[in-house]
Amino acid sequence: MGFMDKDFLLTTDSAKHLFHTYAENLPVIDYHCHIDPAQILENHEFSDITEAWLGADHYKWRLMRVCGADEKYVTGDASAREKFREFCRLLPLAPGHPVYHWCHLELRRYFGCELIIGEKTADEIFDICGEKLKSLRVRDIIKESNVKAICTTDDPADELSSHTALKADTSFGTVVLPAFRPDKSINLHKGDYPEYLQKLGLAANIRIATLDDLLAALENRIDYFDAHGCRASDHGLDCVNGEIPTQKEASAIFAKALSGGISQSEQDAFASFMLCFLGREYAKRGWAMEIHVGAERNVNAKMFSRLGPDTGFDAVRDGHSLKTLHKVLDQLDRESLLPKTLVFSLNHNDNLTITTLTSCFSQGGVPGKVQPGAAWWFNDSILGMREHMERMASVQALGNFVGMLTDSRSFLSYPRHEYFRRILCGYLGDLVEGGLYPEDYETLGRIVQNISYYNAAKFIGFDLK
Amino acid sequence: MGFMDKDFLLTTDSAKHLFHTYAENLPVIDYHCHIDPAQILENHEFSDITEAWLGADHYKWRLMRVCGADEKYVTGDASAREKFREFCRLLPLAPGHPVYHWCHLELRRYFGCELIIGEKTADEIFDICGEKLKSLRVRDIIKESNVKAICTTDDPADELSSHTALKADTSFGTVVLPAFRPDKSINLHKGDYPEYLQKLGLAANIRIATLDDLLAALENRIDYFDAHGCRASDHGLDCVNGEIPTQKEASAIFAKALSGGISQSEQDAFASFMLCFLGREYAKRGWAMEIHVGAERNVNAKMFSRLGPDTGFDAVRDGHSLKTLHKVLDQLDRESLLPKTLVFSLNHNDNLTITTLTSCFSQGGVPGKVQPGAAWWFNDSILGMREHMERMASVQALGNFVGMLTDSRSFLSYPRHEYFRRILCGYLGDLVEGGLYPEDYETLGRIVQNISYYNAAKFIGFDLK
Amino acid sequence: MGFMDKDFLLTTDSAKHLFHTYAENLPVIDYHCHIDPAQILENHEFSDITEAWLGADHYKWRLMRVCGADEKYVTGDASAREKFREFCRLLPLAPGHPVYHWCHLELRRYFGCELIIGEKTADEIFDICGEKLKSLRVRDIIKESNVKAICTTDDPADELSSHTALKADTSFGTVVLPAFRPDKSINLHKGDYPEYLQKLGLAANIRIATLDDLLAALENRIDYFDAHGCRASDHGLDCVNGEIPTQKEASAIFAKALSGGISQSEQDAFASFMLCFLGREYAKRGWAMEIHVGAERNVNAKMFSRLGPDTGFDAVRDGHSLKTLHKVLDQLDRESLLPKTLVFSLNHNDNLTITTLTSCFSQGGVPGKVQPGAAWWFNDSILGMREHMERMASVQALGNFVGMLTDSRSFLSYPRHEYFRRILCGYLGDLVEGGLYPEDYETLGRIVQNISYYNAAKFIGFDLK
Repeated sequence: MGFMDKDFLLTTDSAKHLFHTYAENLPVIDYHCHIDPAQILENHEFSDITEAWLGADHYKWRLMRVCGADEKYVTGDASAREKFREFCRLLPLAPGHPVYHWCHLELRRYFGCELIIGEKTADEIFDICGEKLKSLRVRDIIKESNVKAICTTDDPADELSSHTALKADTSFGTVVLPAFRPDKSINLHKGDYPEYLQKLGLAANIRIATLDDLLAALENRIDYFDAHGCRASDHGLDCVNGEIPTQKEASAIFAKALSGGISQSEQDAFASFMLCFLGREYAKRGWAMEIHVGAERNVNAKMFSRLGPDTGFDAVRDGHSLKTLHKVLDQLDRESLLPKTLVFSLNHNDNLTITTLTSCFSQGGVPGKVQPGAAWWFNDSILGMREHMERMASVQALGNFVGMLTDSRSFLSYPRHEYFRRILCGYLGDLVEGGLYPEDYETLGRIVQNISYYNAAKFIGFDLK
Repeated sequence: MGFMDKDFLLTTDSAKHLFHTYAENLPVIDYHCHIDPAQILENHEFSDITEAWLGADHYKWRLMRVCGADEKYVTGDASAREKFREFCRLLPLAPGHPVYHWCHLELRRYFGCELIIGEKTADEIFDICGEKLKSLRVRDIIKESNVKAICTTDDPADELSSHTALKADTSFGTVVLPAFRPDKSINLHKGDYPEYLQKLGLAANIRIATLDDLLAALENRIDYFDAHGCRASDHGLDCVNGEIPTQKEASAIFAKALSGGISQSEQDAFASFMLCFLGREYAKRGWAMEIHVGAERNVNAKMFSRLGPDTGFDAVRDGHSLKTLHKVLDQLDRESLLPKTLVFSLNHNDNLTITTLTSCFSQGGVPGKVQPGAAWWFNDSILGMREHMERMASVQALGNFVGMLTDSRSFLSYPRHEYFRRILCGYLGDLVEGGLYPEDYETLGRIVQNISYYNAAKFIGFDLK
Repeated sequence: MGFMDKDFLLTTDSAKHLFHTYAENLPVIDYHCHIDPAQILENHEFSDITEAWLGADHYKWRLMRVCGADEKYVTGDASAREKFREFCRLLPLAPGHPVYHWCHLELRRYFGCELIIGEKTADEIFDICGEKLKSLRVRDIIKESNVKAICTTDDPADELSSHTALKADTSFGTVVLPAFRPDKSINLHKGDYPEYLQKLGLAANIRIATLDDLLAALENRIDYFDAHGCRASDHGLDCVNGEIPTQKEASAIFAKALSGGISQSEQDAFASFMLCFLGREYAKRGWAMEIHVGAERNVNAKMFSRLGPDTGFDAVRDGHSLKTLHKVLDQLDRESLLPKTLVFSLNHNDNLTITTLTSCFSQGGVPGKVQPGAAWWFNDSILGMREHMERMASVQALGNFVGMLTDSRSFLSYPRHEYFRRILCGYLGDLVEGGLYPEDYETLGRIVQNISYYNAAKFIGFDLK
């Protein structure tokens, strides 16, 4: 098979048929990402491919560093061309790495460039992309990528002004909605918590002195987000094994945190209380709840103090447990206030536990109401996605899968949806060619279309034409 | 390859040869299952395929629920035909799921029906099966499935009347033996423990007030089971990392439990003591010990209160440890009273730990004396079985493998042995075609026959003609 | 494909090309093993294949035992021929096991014997090997294996006399260096610790009464090892989740251990302190640090008391955590005294955590400065190596991989490097044929050469011609 040709990842005739007939031309719903809506609003123009690729993408930074790049070429003061050369010099060292494939997909899809990235082609690629980027601004990229809807990730205190302006702008066809990420309001133990409370209180017009105030402020902001079209929340969770405290106990932890320090286990308990509280509010409004577990963040203290978070120094956690999450889901379900929920873990060893745990909370008429989220971050690779799909197929029902999201900081990352769809069709094709599923393209085609697009639309609750 | 044709799962010529020559026609030993011996005794007749498939099979219930079925069609009051239609409508959403394959295998093997299950074929299949079931009663199914021996799962307090009657019935050729599952006698912390003690005491004719009484009663029942042909025990274990208490300490926990409440860690310690006690008794009688770990049961409290246990609301546990089990095995081995043991985990991440741990306890002349049990429950899939086999092949010796059991509540589940054998031959065929094992069918054929049938017969100790 | 023919494990044309052109003829660097340098010095002659294969290799002992061999044939008093017959009788029961492949590779590479091992061929193989071994002494084996450099594993108290003599012997071309394994100096809780301290103190010419003395003695021995060419250290670590103690706290633990007993958590804390101390010393001297976690040793108490350690009764640990290791790496990095480090885990479930954790500590100009070690021990199989490679390729950059080591007690184990290289080329070949990497053999060939040889040379810091 030619390198990344039109049948990339489609190893059987069935896979080819499924992808080209059912998946290839479907629009994209990117229901969780970290792009800046202000850049969409202002229709940001990238000065060069270095800005677009290496400006904020910690996946690529990390890859350069493990290959021995000097920080000068990563986040330092080397020129754009020098940085790009260094990246191109090192990328070939990573056969099998998703960034290798993403970069080549992006070159082909957005820049019409079929060159193989390497030391020798770096300058030529830099120039081709630079030329092309003049007419490829942020909105062009989104439009070319056939993106119907985007959910950004936003703090409860955010005024959502970019979202408001984008909604009013009829010239742009893609729906851009906020998503509610209240982690900062939950992380009592962080040093800047008091300042954050002030910011949140200002946004909600409530002076926050007690847990009751905090809950009122969050409810206020949830209503505000809801009025601005929000359909989903997002949580980063340090998953543990402990009991959910009562509101009285949680109030005490809150007060203790404001007057002094709390232990990690008090923080964890508080987080489980908050997840219950927020889950109820999401359920009442029909929002989806997204929960991300298993991340060990800011592993390198020296680089954290130099560059801050989300700069490529995170790892996969071990030793955590999904037992508290189990209690949260069960508590909400007992109250009939369990929202649609996606649980992502950064540790692929959790796949089976998460898939079987979430499958215990179903609701008639809502297929896959609580389910594992797509293979996340370090698992967003051929290996990780295939593991995730096969596990879900084996113990849940693949047809329910809400499917792919980019989770990305890069506007050029939409081909990851193509990558995912090819892997999905590859897997289904294997089943057909192996005699494990009938050659029934009507059914399989519908499954592919649903996982690629319609399931996400329905699950998040987009009102798409 | 055609859908589930005669070479289903046999992707190489070697695999085909191995399966069709050595595995296909061997009888079945189902050494662990949850069928009701009374239904064999009375030769139960199923009113329709809904009763046979959906009457008690929580695998199928669960699959329906995650696909959005209303409980009415699962365990509710919809008609048999309506329930079956709903099941057939949803099953195609589960490509790659073992239930998808099991159902089609069962249709073909028992009902001569080659139809593909789906919304459109539901009624026709319902009718075909209904007609056929009139002459396909429980004993017919067992006979057609070529089952030589069955071990049911029985409580120590059970009088085993069905087993006694079946043994006396010379018209039925399959050996049906009890297996000893003393979980209820170990679970001090359960609310109904005092009542259970009374029941057990009655069966053993011993008034149980102390741990000594309990041990005496269990020994009495082990003798009773032994006299009724029992060859194996079964334990569900919450695996932890703690020390095994002395008998004095265990007595204190027992007394505390009867007079009030005990902690989870006291319960866990007590369980490890009991496992040692019982293991010795099994060893003395040459019984095999089966231990199941890694299950998180009754995850959904609302549905548990409505439907009870074993209704499709279980999950895979995380955060457990095999360290206490290690101590139990080592303790028994030091006393030269370690029985043949199979350890099953619901969490496939335990495969390597279990396989290497059990391999440390061997005995001359008893191949694979302590070994991992077959891929269990949520791992009873192509993915799970292949993972399990490859791991065992890589760190133990596949030829020792005691092989497949159904662990099922369904009388139609014997084709799972066929499924397993095909996967086994598929794996061995891959080795041969890949040049990883010589094309020596004499040796490979023997390995296939042993894993499919003879190893289980020898391990459990069946006296088969 | 024929059984283990010249294209063994090379399933694509690309794989064949890569292996035969770039990997096959490269020399071997065995940077971690457990062979006895005295046997190289004296150019040991094996009396027969039983001594060479079954004299000290607990992999084979273990395999025989799980297959039901009586201990008489394993470590007992059966004759060499009887033992070998029993081994040959049982080996065919292990399709897919690496020992199966290793043995056949060794027969072919060292003895020119293409026979398939089995009961019928046992005597003939015994005789062929016996004849050949007369002219195949330890140095012949090493020479024929094209081994450029070997790192043994040595205690800090060792005088390294064999290494000194070997260095002086110009007739032998292979570099044989010591590696520093200070586990005994760290394991305060072991009964023989005081005696060990005496031995170590004697070697360092320091009377060890306090932690300060111990650190001084170790620094002395590190200098001694350094002067004898040592480039690497090795640690077996019980990985936990706890804080690193201060030197004052560590001193208190040390004192407590000498005057009485310490708890496991005190031992663990002490070990993390020592790892920091030693890591700094390694960094100062440019040594590489190797850390092995996840082993549960001496699982069978009865056999341990009979045969001692490293006799085939070890297992894979569960329930451990890499959090303390994370703290150690971070602490050293903050001090800019983090050495090049390889982290091996016996539990393959750690692969992703280890790979992402180590990737957070990079250094410009030192590709893969902290990285996962090769698939270790129970993972040293096709399955384990492929899992390890694919994971590393997916989240790090495969081209940085320091590659294979034998970790072996057997002088005949060098074909494991061939085994590894074939699997590596097999994986890369799959990428090329699947269209996942360009057919760029210049780049791929360099990657193969680096992983097979040059990366290890550079990482460990061999000064090879």
